Amino acid sequence: MAILSALATEVLIPVAGVIGIAFAVVQWVLVSRVKLSPAAAAAGGSKNGYGDYLIEEEEGLNDHNVVVKCAEIQNAISEGATSFLFTEYQYVGIFMSIFAVVIFLFLGSVEGFSTKSQPCTYSKGKTCKPALFTALFSTASFLLGAITSLVSGFLGMKIATYANARTTLEARKGVGKAFITAFRSGAVMGFLLASSGLVVLYITINVFKLYYGDDWEGLFESITGYGLGGSSMALFGRVGGGIYTKAADVGADLVGKVERNIPEDDPRNPAVIADNVGDNVGDIAGMGSDLFGSYAESSCAALVVASISSFGINHDFTGMCYPLLVSSVGIIVCLITTLFATDFFEIKAVKEIEPALKKQLIISTALMTVGIAIISWLALPAKFTIFNFGTQKEVSNWGLFFCVAIGLWAGLIIGFVTEYYTSNAYSPVQDVADSCRTGAATNVIFGLALGYKSVIIPIFAIAVSIYVSFSIAAMYGIAVAALGMLSTIATGLAIDAYGPISDNAGGIAEMAGMSHRIRERTDALDAAGNTTAAIGKGFAIGSAALVSLALFGAFVSRAGVKVVDVLSPKVFIGLIVGAMLPYWFSAMTMKSVGSAALKMVEEVRRQFNTIPGLMEGTGKPDYATCVKISTDASIKEMIPPGALVMLTPLIVGTLFGVETLSGVLAGALVSGVQIAISASNTGGAWDNAKKYIEAGASEHARTLGPKGSDCHKAAVIGDTIGDPLKDTSGPSLNILIKLMAVESLVFAPFFATHGGLLFKYL
Amino acid sequence: MAILSALATEVLIPVAGVIGIAFAVVQWVLVSRVKLSPAAAAAGGSKNGYGDYLIEEEEGLNDHNVVVKCAEIQNAISEGATSFLFTEYQYVGIFMSIFAVVIFLFLGSVEGFSTKSQPCTYSKGKTCKPALFTALFSTASFLLGAITSLVSGFLGMKIATYANARTTLEARKGVGKAFITAFRSGAVMGFLLASSGLVVLYITINVFKLYYGDDWEGLFESITGYGLGGSSMALFGRVGGGIYTKAADVGADLVGKVERNIPEDDPRNPAVIADNVGDNVGDIAGMGSDLFGSYAESSCAALVVASISSFGINHDFTGMCYPLLVSSVGIIVCLITTLFATDFFEIKAVKEIEPALKKQLIISTALMTVGIAIISWLALPAKFTIFNFGTQKEVSNWGLFFCVAIGLWAGLIIGFVTEYYTSNAYSPVQDVADSCRTGAATNVIFGLALGYKSVIIPIFAIAVSIYVSFSIAAMYGIAVAALGMLSTIATGLAIDAYGPISDNAGGIAEMAGMSHRIRERTDALDAAGNTTAAIGKGFAIGSAALVSLALFGAFVSRAGVKVVDVLSPKVFIGLIVGAMLPYWFSAMTMKSVGSAALKMVEEVRRQFNTIPGLMEGTGKPDYATCVKISTDASIKEMIPPGALVMLTPLIVGTLFGVETLSGVLAGALVSGVQIAISASNTGGAWDNAKKYIEAGASEHARTLGPKGSDCHKAAVIGDTIGDPLKDTSGPSLNILIKLMAVESLVFAPFFATHGGLLFKYL
Repeated sequence: MAILSALATEVLIPVAGVIGIAFAVVQWVLVSRVKLSPAAAAAGGSKNGYGDYLIEEEEGLNDHNVVVKCAEIQNAISEGATSFLFTEYQYVGIFMSIFAVVIFLFLGSVEGFSTKSQPCTYSKGKTCKPALFTALFSTASFLLGAITSLVSGFLGMKIATYANARTTLEARKGVGKAFITAFRSGAVMGFLLASSGLVVLYITINVFKLYYGDDWEGLFESITGYGLGGSSMALFGRVGGGIYTKAADVGADLVGKVERNIPEDDPRNPAVIADNVGDNVGDIAGMGSDLFGSYAESSCAALVVASISSFGINHDFTGMCYPLLVSSVGIIVCLITTLFATDFFEIKAVKEIEPALKKQLIISTALMTVGIAIISWLALPAKFTIFNFGTQKEVSNWGLFFCVAIGLWAGLIIGFVTEYYTSNAYSPVQDVADSCRTGAATNVIFGLALGYKSVIIPIFAIAVSIYVSFSIAAMYGIAVAALGMLSTIATGLAIDAYGPISDNAGGIAEMAGMSHRIRERTDALDAAGNTTAAIGKGFAIGSAALVSLALFGAFVSRAGVKVVDVLSPKVFIGLIVGAMLPYWFSAMTMKSVGSAALKMVEEVRRQFNTIPGLMEGTGKPDYATCVKISTDASIKEMIPPGALVMLTPLIVGTLFGVETLSGVLAGALVSGVQIAISASNTGGAWDNAKKYIEAGASEHARTLGPKGSDCHKAAVIGDTIGDPLKDTSGPSLNILIKLMAVESLVFAPFFATHGGLLFKYL
Repeated sequence: MAILSALATEVLIPVAGVIGIAFAVVQWVLVSRVKLSPAAAAAGGSKNGYGDYLIEEEEGLNDHNVVVKCAEIQNAISEGATSFLFTEYQYVGIFMSIFAVVIFLFLGSVEGFSTKSQPCTYSKGKTCKPALFTALFSTASFLLGAITSLVSGFLGMKIATYANARTTLEARKGVGKAFITAFRSGAVMGFLLASSGLVVLYITINVFKLYYGDDWEGLFESITGYGLGGSSMALFGRVGGGIYTKAADVGADLVGKVERNIPEDDPRNPAVIADNVGDNVGDIAGMGSDLFGSYAESSCAALVVASISSFGINHDFTGMCYPLLVSSVGIIVCLITTLFATDFFEIKAVKEIEPALKKQLIISTALMTVGIAIISWLALPAKFTIFNFGTQKEVSNWGLFFCVAIGLWAGLIIGFVTEYYTSNAYSPVQDVADSCRTGAATNVIFGLALGYKSVIIPIFAIAVSIYVSFSIAAMYGIAVAALGMLSTIATGLAIDAYGPISDNAGGIAEMAGMSHRIRERTDALDAAGNTTAAIGKGFAIGSAALVSLALFGAFVSRAGVKVVDVLSPKVFIGLIVGAMLPYWFSAMTMKSVGSAALKMVEEVRRQFNTIPGLMEGTGKPDYATCVKISTDASIKEMIPPGALVMLTPLIVGTLFGVETLSGVLAGALVSGVQIAISASNTGGAWDNAKKYIEAGASEHARTLGPKGSDCHKAAVIGDTIGDPLKDTSGPSLNILIKLMAVESLVFAPFFATHGGLLFKYL
């Protein structure tokens, strides 16, 4: 047996969760010390933050008007974001309610809504709880997952819109202060999300256990609904938010930068508030929901496989909770890691930002490796068996440690490759920038080629992780590898959220009419944020690939499929159609962004043409109409892609059966992961190629610039094309592959009994 | 037994081949009646073609200088193309020789170079010829396939460069005359290629039979080398030609159209000859080799499966030759179809061109359906058995007819969907054109979305064909479905080749300084050609998907793999890495086009800046340097992608074994087919969106134009980005998936005995 007792496990997990939440609150308090009311700021400028600001960098600290203006703008952004999210949640709420009914009806019908106990699926001979109640609990955990995801996204947005203006104000004191404010705010979100995800899941398991008792098979089967709920919410969050942010961004840029030659985030641009709102609802709320979904799914995938392995069969609670323990350790490790950025070291110059963020990744990975080793030694028996498609495979605790670690390190490799291909410190992005010499067309050709190329190493890293972790511990190995990749999620999210907060801070500085120097500081923060956003997406996609495969394995086991043979036509047609789905989905989302952006362009043009004195700064633009256009477009346009993803498994499973559905899942996985990586990196590279030309930090960059040169115009076109790729289609695709897999798993009992109608009757 | 005797089959196939060749010669004679020597033209203008030209459209028929100039330009293009192809063939020749040695050594080593007869692989108990001799014959058929492919491409190029100026001269008499000249020339290529492919394969089988006698298993195993040879040559032809043509095209456009504001094909542009040479080496020679490769592979795939089915086991020669008989009927059907375009009807107006070409597709498909029914009834026994992964499956002759027919009709559906998405007569392209209002960025976003969307229906068509034909006749069904899609290849090629010939004709008209009216006529021909080119690519990709699957099935059978289980990690890592290969390959080819285009741009700029009087038309540009840049770039750049495709199966098979290789093939297939379709259609749509704005044929189109407007400039950028997508990466991808499959099949005996070294020793 393991060293750690069941009681210790029962204590350790919630304690780690509470520590995480407490740490988030502390960070929030530190951020809140930056005062946004002019009186407080005037009275105690020196008390902002730590009060030990560098005098020589200080600028405009006593300008009350600036503080008032910042507060006003922040308010507008926050209101826009809140109102959008409420509208979005209303529509999603209706959808979720309907889907909850569908889950209950489908799963309830498996045994004809009988309230009698039934023989277990895996432990033949034992008796398990009736399918009807599992349907009920699955529905409940689905709703719980959806609500947790919703709250995660919403809180993230609230924190980000709380922090953006504070970051701007701190930027007056220097880049280091601004960095810490933005990073701390990111950390609030990261720790809140990681901890609440863990705590809610932990409580749910314990509550459900009151009913299920010894039937762990049914218990963890119903728990998978949590992953489905989290991911469904994430889908709408990502797609809706993605369309919102990019419609506003593209629309604002096309008229502002290209036609009117006014800078980004200029307050005269009517779409500027919508653009800044977009960062918060897309990149913050959408991403928060997304990563929460990944985390919930990988935990569920690991738990459901564990429940039919020796942990579940022998009722070894500590072993069973190993996935949750890994996450608990992750929270502590990330807490220590965060201190390296906020307390142990201090950023003094712009060029230190990117290394500081990179160090976060390296430190958390290194510490986590130790953490996993310790928890594997404490929580796992020396030998145990894992379910492997009908047989049990013997695994050692060190073997399982290796599975988690390989996932963790594969994540780091993917992160670094992503950085190499999207940071303008390296040759790939510089080559793309250079290709702007011959115009937008070569920029696009080089950018697309870069994205395609950036797929190679991540895919090899994923393939090696899959092979090794599967060889060691079958599908459980893959599930914990995914969990390993996500174990440092708090740090990952902190880094990720930091980007859009800085982006917003820059926007606020511009709109509040602050000086060029401050804008330069926020721009430097933002440029580093672009790269970290790409890294974050790399993690999200890499873990999504592993998670979906683990869910796929669990689905296949639950559905009773023995082999998924590519040579069977039922599977092969699934494979090729599945590989097509990411294209269909991308076509929808990109077209949506395009159409919404066109509407935005027309409105912005209309305002410039009809509002007197707008260009001169004497007239006031109508921000609200632009916010409304983005809101309406994204609500309307998120339905078809959402329906495609949610309905495909249901239709395929019901009509064509589990074999074809297996093919669809595998096809969507292997094809989607490629498009997702290449789309994110292409977009990131274009964005940073543009920033490279704008910053003009090297001899080479200066030959391409300055802003407004032909090269720069070509780079702006690339950046605009990249927007929907990197912020709408690309990151939504990883939800597509995860969600279809987890949905198939939840509905597996139904498909296994009633699925494949078409082939049955033909 | 079948109605058709073995003797009748022996006669029928070569007779159909000879009829096809004779028809090609007749068409060539008709084209050659258009005289290019000024004396002849002056002496008998009225004798050109039929001599019944429409007087009212006649223009400049007596201008000797124009004829001389056309002849000069044609000569320059022809010389450039010939010299490039010779250079290319030298390099490819070296590669092919080395690869021939590799084939011999690998296959010879299967039984340790023993000259002893061995037990057969499938018919246990029987004795087959020694592996060493099969290695020898495979090598020989490989070289034969490569040479036939090379000759096909070369002859196609010769015909096209013979026809281009003649089409220009005929355009003086009217659009109908020009159309017939271009179409007849296309037909020369189509029939020559289809017939020679059939005849060479037929002769090879008969010659090899002299050695193999009753060992049909070995005979058809060695024949698969023919497909490998054809496809390897096609790979280099497509990639090399594709890089050549697009480097020149993009380079010429970027400086000419964008910077200098001179029209396309303006003789002052130094890259103009290289651009026109490119059409002939890329779109004609490359595509000829490509479709020949598809044809050879689908025949080989069908033959090798048939040889281990009842046809082969019972030595039913007629049944065995069914694939060749289908192609023979195809030649006759296409011959009749061609007469509908050239003799039964006459094109009188521009708007009749596209319908005439579409009619060709419909007529050939309808007639071919009848033809297949007849030959299936004549050549097949009522019942026979087909090899199905170890067992024999009973199939009826009508079932097999249905397999061929479903492939044929799926091809037509793919063709029509492609037309819908790439022709500017329909809303998708018009929407893309409309999005140019807001600049290049929205144009690119809409274009990419269009390409992604255009994948949906073709994939469903392919999936249905696969499911139905596999259900009826296992992998043989899929092979003959592919053959069905390619059975009207002569017509398909005629339509396909017609496009670049018209494109060249327009170029020559512009360079020879002919009137605006004539240029308009050739432009109309060319616009229809863009759509037909996209349709041709659709066919090529659709058939490639079916062919590769059939080859994959044959490979799996030969390698002795019983299931390709996605749940096995060996297979899954193959699947995900295989799905990545098309991205890697596209990254290479797109970057190559980009870099070569940059060099071209620099050279063209240099010439404009340094050659006095070039812009004014008094200085003469240095065409040869531009031709050399394209030649050098394409030769150098075709090696890495070529090596990637050729080496992957060898490395994976040798190191990781047949299971992983199966995964790689399936992954590359399901992922590659999507990128190939979307890339081709996106490129085609951008090209025609630009042409839509230029032509200004509707009220809507006129609001976007004219040439030189901001909308038009945005459209030109899209067109330029589309160039490498539609003419380099996209069409090369179908060779990637076919070639890896056929190569695996040829090397299957080696992999089955010696493969998987890494897993063996780990």
